[in-house]
Amino acid sequence: MLKKIGLIGLGTVGESVLRSLKKHAAIICQRTSIKLEVKKICDTNRAKNKLAKDLSLAFTTNPNDLINDPEIDIIVELIGGIEPAKSIIMECLKNGKSVVTANKALLADSGKQIFNLAKKNNKSVGFEASVCGAIPIIKTISEGLVSCDVKKIYGILNGTTNYVLDKMLKENIDFNTALKEAQDKGLAEKNPFLDIEGMDAHHKLCILSYLCYGVWPLSKNVYTEGIAKIGLIDILYAEELNYRIKLLAIAKKEKDCLELRVHPTLIPIDHPLAQVSLAYNAVYLDTDPAGELLFYGEGAGGVPTSSSVISDIVGIVSGNCGFIRGESKIKIKNIKDTVGRYYIRCMAQDRPGVLAEVSKILASLNISVASVTQKEKKDSKFVPIIMITHKAVEDNIRKAISRIDKLNMVQIPSQVIRIEDL
Amino acid sequence: MLKKIGLIGLGTVGESVLRSLKKHAAIICQRTSIKLEVKKICDTNRAKNKLAKDLSLAFTTNPNDLINDPEIDIIVELIGGIEPAKSIIMECLKNGKSVVTANKALLADSGKQIFNLAKKNNKSVGFEASVCGAIPIIKTISEGLVSCDVKKIYGILNGTTNYVLDKMLKENIDFNTALKEAQDKGLAEKNPFLDIEGMDAHHKLCILSYLCYGVWPLSKNVYTEGIAKIGLIDILYAEELNYRIKLLAIAKKEKDCLELRVHPTLIPIDHPLAQVSLAYNAVYLDTDPAGELLFYGEGAGGVPTSSSVISDIVGIVSGNCGFIRGESKIKIKNIKDTVGRYYIRCMAQDRPGVLAEVSKILASLNISVASVTQKEKKDSKFVPIIMITHKAVEDNIRKAISRIDKLNMVQIPSQVIRIEDL
Repeated sequence: MLKKIGLIGLGTVGESVLRSLKKHAAIICQRTSIKLEVKKICDTNRAKNKLAKDLSLAFTTNPNDLINDPEIDIIVELIGGIEPAKSIIMECLKNGKSVVTANKALLADSGKQIFNLAKKNNKSVGFEASVCGAIPIIKTISEGLVSCDVKKIYGILNGTTNYVLDKMLKENIDFNTALKEAQDKGLAEKNPFLDIEGMDAHHKLCILSYLCYGVWPLSKNVYTEGIAKIGLIDILYAEELNYRIKLLAIAKKEKDCLELRVHPTLIPIDHPLAQVSLAYNAVYLDTDPAGELLFYGEGAGGVPTSSSVISDIVGIVSGNCGFIRGESKIKIKNIKDTVGRYYIRCMAQDRPGVLAEVSKILASLNISVASVTQKEKKDSKFVPIIMITHKAVEDNIRKAISRIDKLNMVQIPSQVIRIEDL
Repeated sequence: MLKKIGLIGLGTVGESVLRSLKKHAAIICQRTSIKLEVKKICDTNRAKNKLAKDLSLAFTTNPNDLINDPEIDIIVELIGGIEPAKSIIMECLKNGKSVVTANKALLADSGKQIFNLAKKNNKSVGFEASVCGAIPIIKTISEGLVSCDVKKIYGILNGTTNYVLDKMLKENIDFNTALKEAQDKGLAEKNPFLDIEGMDAHHKLCILSYLCYGVWPLSKNVYTEGIAKIGLIDILYAEELNYRIKLLAIAKKEKDCLELRVHPTLIPIDHPLAQVSLAYNAVYLDTDPAGELLFYGEGAGGVPTSSSVISDIVGIVSGNCGFIRGESKIKIKNIKDTVGRYYIRCMAQDRPGVLAEVSKILASLNISVASVTQKEKKDSKFVPIIMITHKAVEDNIRKAISRIDKLNMVQIPSQVIRIEDL
């Protein structure tokens, strides 16, 4: 069976898809009897023309040349960003073409609209490459775990931030040095905002929320905090307490509401997620009936991601449309109402009574302290006080910190990092 | 869409499938619009009748009552073993019914015949539950990684042996005590031969070989060695050398041949596979283009495994027949011709010249030693000499050990364990 593909966007992933399709054509055909042919390529950058020519493929700068080509069955969109990607995908679906995309930002923004249109037109949208690069997590959740109630998700969904945190720990360097290293290695963008501030993980969590719970959350309802404020000092103190700091995307389902949040998190050092190093991604799921599962692999990069794009193409061609799942209504919990344990680092002047004042504030807000370590710092006028709390309501923690930071003897804002005892 | 199922074999998994189908009916329907109904149950044990009655289901002791029921679309076989399971599955396929099975022993033995018959009759055989319980590894490899060349597989495919090895290490106990503990916890059978001797992992490796390489190997061509000979002493020495001992199922593809083997293996202590504890399973894949991947979860138990059985049923009902892949011809390498590094423990009398004699034998067979540790043992007349070799041919290692064990000063057979520097 021969199927023709149109490819829009010839960046790192697009180029790798072309090369992988060529290199692995025999394997694909032997396994599925499907032959895939890229008929036309579209990119705004005429320089990409050369690559298309080298591979003897037709090239255009106008996406409509692909959308209106009756011979093309599937369009692969790899340009990223909201527009023109959104208009292109909507046009494809209206025009009776299925779509494969790696565009997490677009799905997080307009997934509801896109999947509704696909359903109406009886077409498919493959989006395996939009979450965790090479890990087939979308297929795993939507098909492999089709009967499962996903109670909890803990995901390391962004390779850049994991790389930065890992390097800070392993090389004893600060955030900016580690980020610079990631940029030099091509693991972070020149403008690393989307990654560092947690927005990339946020987009992916929105997609997992749809898959697992049938909910496309509003962006503002998914609390998101990046890693820029994490100090090497916190990473080292966490290790002393047998915790490791990871940027986690978290979902927790309770009876009638859902927690969705992205933030740096202290996790037990012996949990498999704590061992995920460099730019690798991993998703840990707690499910019923399949129990606890972990999926680990490369989360980005053109070559690995091409595997997911091709899997989607083959799936659509072979009539396995995945499941466009029904939407459900479930309330998303405000971060202020969540309950958890916290790591708090206050930088206080080394004067009698500091600990007493801080403890009084915490107690007044019903926050119970599980452990305190006061560090001696000979070269600084501020002394770090590290506290691990018992379970407390986030809103109370915020109030406490606000009061603590107003104390005369506390002059640097306190650091607060959430703990998950997974 | 309502589909009717016949269930043969009401053991731990069968019962859990019934319960999960009931408990998660709403989730399945919301995600897929499919309603699944178990119409009839077959088990030779009439006592199971009660459970069927409690769930108000028809019960029979004759599988033909299900096979010949025109209303039943899919038969789930969960009795295990070769016969009568094989005859039942063949009858089902001939009778136009698709089959879901968890029967690894049967597939390893007769997979070729069964898949050929399924292909001929245009029916599906779902076998997700046959490898790694709840981990959707079959779907992942056959669909999620459809374009991938799987260069290497390292799998912890048997929970019982992983539990025993993990307990020996963590509780400092010997093999028999750990095995007894596993039996007491229901994690090992009363007759644990299939698990302990590596045959269960062997069966699963045969299935992965078909999936990844299109080869159903003859059983005798898959070298298999269990964990009964692993001493606590080896586990502890391995740790000192920064290795952990795991029972691994290994596949390696070279240009024109395939290595398939199951044996205890020293792996680097910081590799994610070394962290797989208790009865968990994990599969590590080295692929092109998807790179390195690891999948981790519960490998056995009725409740987790029911997730895989249901995923197969839903897949078949929704017309996603998986891929019955073409067979390929690739030679399986004899274990004697494989090349690797080895851990060797000789128990020698503490007399001058032992190390010289042993070294001479190794050198004569072109085996180069990377490290030697001679342990002082005050309470024993034998002194362990622990050697880690550089890369050597297995056949030479065997010859060397045979000669070493004939030395007068070596009276206990030497221990040899393969190393994988993954």
